[in-house]
Amino acid sequence: MAAPQGLRATEARVWIARTPGLSAAALAAALARAGGDAAAVTALPQAALAECGLADAAIAHLGRPDPDRIAADRAWLEADPARGLVLFGETAYPPLLAAIPDPPPALWLHGEATLLAAPQIAIVGSRNPTPGGRENAAAFARALVGAGLAVTSGLALGIDGAAHRGALAAGGATVAVCGTGLDRVYPASHRELAREIARRGLLVSEFPPGTPPRPHHFPRRNRIIAGLALGTLVVEAAARSGSLITARLAAEQGREVFAVPGSIHNPLARGCHALIRQGAKLVEEAADILEELGPLWAAAAAPQPPAADRPGTPTGRDPAYARLLAALADGPAGIDLLVERTGLTPEEVSSMLLVLELEGQVSSAPGGLYARRHGQEA
Amino acid sequence: MAAPQGLRATEARVWIARTPGLSAAALAAALARAGGDAAAVTALPQAALAECGLADAAIAHLGRPDPDRIAADRAWLEADPARGLVLFGETAYPPLLAAIPDPPPALWLHGEATLLAAPQIAIVGSRNPTPGGRENAAAFARALVGAGLAVTSGLALGIDGAAHRGALAAGGATVAVCGTGLDRVYPASHRELAREIARRGLLVSEFPPGTPPRPHHFPRRNRIIAGLALGTLVVEAAARSGSLITARLAAEQGREVFAVPGSIHNPLARGCHALIRQGAKLVEEAADILEELGPLWAAAAAPQPPAADRPGTPTGRDPAYARLLAALADGPAGIDLLVERTGLTPEEVSSMLLVLELEGQVSSAPGGLYARRHGQEA
Repeated sequence: MAAPQGLRATEARVWIARTPGLSAAALAAALARAGGDAAAVTALPQAALAECGLADAAIAHLGRPDPDRIAADRAWLEADPARGLVLFGETAYPPLLAAIPDPPPALWLHGEATLLAAPQIAIVGSRNPTPGGRENAAAFARALVGAGLAVTSGLALGIDGAAHRGALAAGGATVAVCGTGLDRVYPASHRELAREIARRGLLVSEFPPGTPPRPHHFPRRNRIIAGLALGTLVVEAAARSGSLITARLAAEQGREVFAVPGSIHNPLARGCHALIRQGAKLVEEAADILEELGPLWAAAAAPQPPAADRPGTPTGRDPAYARLLAALADGPAGIDLLVERTGLTPEEVSSMLLVLELEGQVSSAPGGLYARRHGQEA
Repeated sequence: MAAPQGLRATEARVWIARTPGLSAAALAAALARAGGDAAAVTALPQAALAECGLADAAIAHLGRPDPDRIAADRAWLEADPARGLVLFGETAYPPLLAAIPDPPPALWLHGEATLLAAPQIAIVGSRNPTPGGRENAAAFARALVGAGLAVTSGLALGIDGAAHRGALAAGGATVAVCGTGLDRVYPASHRELAREIARRGLLVSEFPPGTPPRPHHFPRRNRIIAGLALGTLVVEAAARSGSLITARLAAEQGREVFAVPGSIHNPLARGCHALIRQGAKLVEEAADILEELGPLWAAAAAPQPPAADRPGTPTGRDPAYARLLAALADGPAGIDLLVERTGLTPEEVSSMLLVLELEGQVSSAPGGLYARRHGQEA
């Protein structure tokens, strides 16, 4: 579509991403009006933009592009092929995030962009955890990436950092949602961690390059953390803390909320206990989360042909999977028993059961039991 | 009612209490048939007893009294005025226990018999708790007797003993339900504790004097612990432990179940976590229990005239209560705020709020708030 008064595509997209007060809904309407062409959005008449729900300030912004600012954003994007920008309505925009009440109109990215759509578990908690809380965050992250989930958090000190590091240490994927532009790192002490996440995971921000940390950015960031993930795990949190906001947002978004209990004498268990009283699932180990996410995860995954049609699936040739399926031949069994029968670790068994569930070879029953699906004899 | 072939009252009651396989329902039917007279029950024709639901062995037992055994039981009862025997259907039989599916037909008592009908909280848990679990049991017991509840447990090692001792240390009432006859103490190391409970609390058993400890006695004892109490608090318990049986029985009896969470690395928190997942209330402090029991307790208490009709109630003249009511004059407040405003301890405030609730002067609102009742201005 021609856009005589408009910008070229990349210029238009970075300028749109900087539009003050732009909602995803208004952007979607404007993109629809412009035939899906970002450059054409900047060429729409003011009246058309107003009809799409853009406020006066947003319309004025689109009509007055700042070439220096645009050049600087382009330069940031083009300095590294791992950098990117996704607008709401574009195919790379993560569907789970698009489903929240107030999705961000733009996401700036640095790292492995495909992780945006990967099944994710958010792990959040106190910036000043106990050593035990820090270890729990890292251990849950390790186990959950082992099961194939990406671990999403907020790059903060404490539980966030431990979760990101635990995921990386296990060779897994991790997504850090930032409260600043991605040319900045907050807190500064996480500079090295942010660099590692950009290299092996993904940094995400709704704030354009150059945006400094501001207190009101962090609750906004929290909605993105919760919105990207199938569920949110709170590891240690004081009563009335930011992690509880993330958990509340997750619950409001219809996502699962998980909380790790602790001693009644640990003030940082109070927030988790409050969540459990409000209906969060009490978790002692990663399997508790996987058990709950199994059906959601299956629903989030693309539809696949039944396992019987895929004799060459990796699980069909892997001796460990054969052992696990044989261990289920006598009837339904729990993870403990399967660990005993197969010699695999609980984490391996959990992860493999999830894969088999997704393949339709195994189904989970109440009470933490797993069973071979009818007609799937070894 | 004349009972020419029967025994005298006390003899009849102890012999009835020893009837093998006697259910409370059959005893109630037989007592009703005998006009409420225990001696007349032993004189009922065999056919009448069979119609009441007594099995052959029970009927044979009633027809063949053993004078030596009866004399020995009488001697045990009469050796101490604090000893007693209550049959199902008699007025001293505790109403809450009578409401369970399989109430014991007889209760042997040693101590303050009126405690049978006192509002009670059961505190149970592992026989091998952590030091922290032991301290928690004692601390909850102290706080709960401070609020006017009796603490009921099973005289076992570990959490049971800590709960009994905590209640006694705070000058409160405690009820120990035993799995042996009351002339025996199990475990033997609790001999001194049992003596103290007989002196200042109450020992209860459905097993007649001389009964040794047997493994199958303890699950039976557990149903009495749960049945006497408004609710059961589990402090530390392994997965698949006897305390979970008590909690399950409490839930089946429609009573409240409370559980103390702990570190996910403490194997003795596993049982409590399992209970919380199944719907038990997670408790961090005694106030969490009192908040839940308030309405039940009020329902269990005898109906009373409204506070407005009782200007001379103790609370009306007590300066501490006046202070607490004044602290509520500005509108609803939580316990923390009331502690700050009155200078009373949280335990005192909780206990006093319960009394005021029972008097109809205060009502509890969602979110742990308390409010003056309309028309109850100071």
